[in-house]
Amino acid sequence: MSLIEALNWRYATKKMNGDAVPQDKVNQILEAAHLAPTSSGLQPFKIIVVTDPELKAKIAEIAFGQQQIIDCSHLLIFAAWDQYTEEKIRAVFAHANAERGLPASATADYENGLIANVTQRTAEENYQHAAKQSYISLGVAMAEAALLKVDATPMEGFDAQKLDELLNLKALNLRSTTLLPLGYRDVEGDWLVNLKKVRSPLTDFVVEY
Amino acid sequence: MSLIEALNWRYATKKMNGDAVPQDKVNQILEAAHLAPTSSGLQPFKIIVVTDPELKAKIAEIAFGQQQIIDCSHLLIFAAWDQYTEEKIRAVFAHANAERGLPASATADYENGLIANVTQRTAEENYQHAAKQSYISLGVAMAEAALLKVDATPMEGFDAQKLDELLNLKALNLRSTTLLPLGYRDVEGDWLVNLKKVRSPLTDFVVEY
Repeated sequence: MSLIEALNWRYATKKMNGDAVPQDKVNQILEAAHLAPTSSGLQPFKIIVVTDPELKAKIAEIAFGQQQIIDCSHLLIFAAWDQYTEEKIRAVFAHANAERGLPASATADYENGLIANVTQRTAEENYQHAAKQSYISLGVAMAEAALLKVDATPMEGFDAQKLDELLNLKALNLRSTTLLPLGYRDVEGDWLVNLKKVRSPLTDFVVEY
Repeated sequence: MSLIEALNWRYATKKMNGDAVPQDKVNQILEAAHLAPTSSGLQPFKIIVVTDPELKAKIAEIAFGQQQIIDCSHLLIFAAWDQYTEEKIRAVFAHANAERGLPASATADYENGLIANVTQRTAEENYQHAAKQSYISLGVAMAEAALLKVDATPMEGFDAQKLDELLNLKALNLRSTTLLPLGYRDVEGDWLVNLKKVRSPLTDFVVEY
């Protein structure tokens, strides 16, 4: 199945049937999300995987009761760095240089420029920048899920502050950005499954210069 | 080629060879980007495709002279709505309902809630929200490009205000978010092509609860 066919197959599943996604498919989705490009290769976010039914139930409560959070087998939570720090940036490049067999000095100028740039921005600006990177990964994760015929429903409708408190994300210097329950559509029970997929006319979406 | 193989093949190409990407491949990348999921299906962004060499040269000037903008055959510019308005939101749902053969009233409650929500946010908050949606599409576009063995280099390093002025995006109520030159790697001339792809350890990236 091509990616375009997969994207046409997928939709924001409203009712899942409770079947579990096999771990190897979850792993492939996580691997694709992990390979997603990010600004300067910083990967300024993590993915939290929740499978515990009690914890999922608590999360559903602060997400307008969205039932997919209960009925999915794996709830992915994308959570971005709450701030860019010199320490974190240095660590990313130290790791990359070590992996590439390069001296620590190989990226010194680039690191210094980046650190000068991010330290003049507010924590909120840096968080917003990090959050955007997590959306690239969210897009790639949804692409991989669709290719594997796993249903996935992206969600921004939750109380991020309460979720961060529930998961103690502040201790990890993270703030939640999006949820992505993984599971399988309930073809009988989902009001959206048979509605036509609608996008804006492509001729409006693309502007040629 | 699986998506994971394609993501391992791709990298942020630093030097392109000037070869043109065939139009049918560009169209597939645009179609995938267009099919990307977005919050409430709003698709609050457009993609501007620049092929004109003179315009690409002007854009390179306000993007730190990054040569891929010159050497690519197609420069995609993702540009998000600068604000959410009742008019725009109503238009999206009117289109969707018409496509689905549903009465305009089918989504009235949902629309009203959404409009109440966005009109209490600042223009900047709404722009940031729209910009994030464009990053989902950017991720999907890069996934499709990689599957087609088309090189693509995501860029945030440009003067967005100057680019918006150059393209007169304010008249379209848009603000540029990211650039994505499409082309082919210059294997001889690219310092990055043979360096190992590095990601954070997957065990750090994924947190299990």
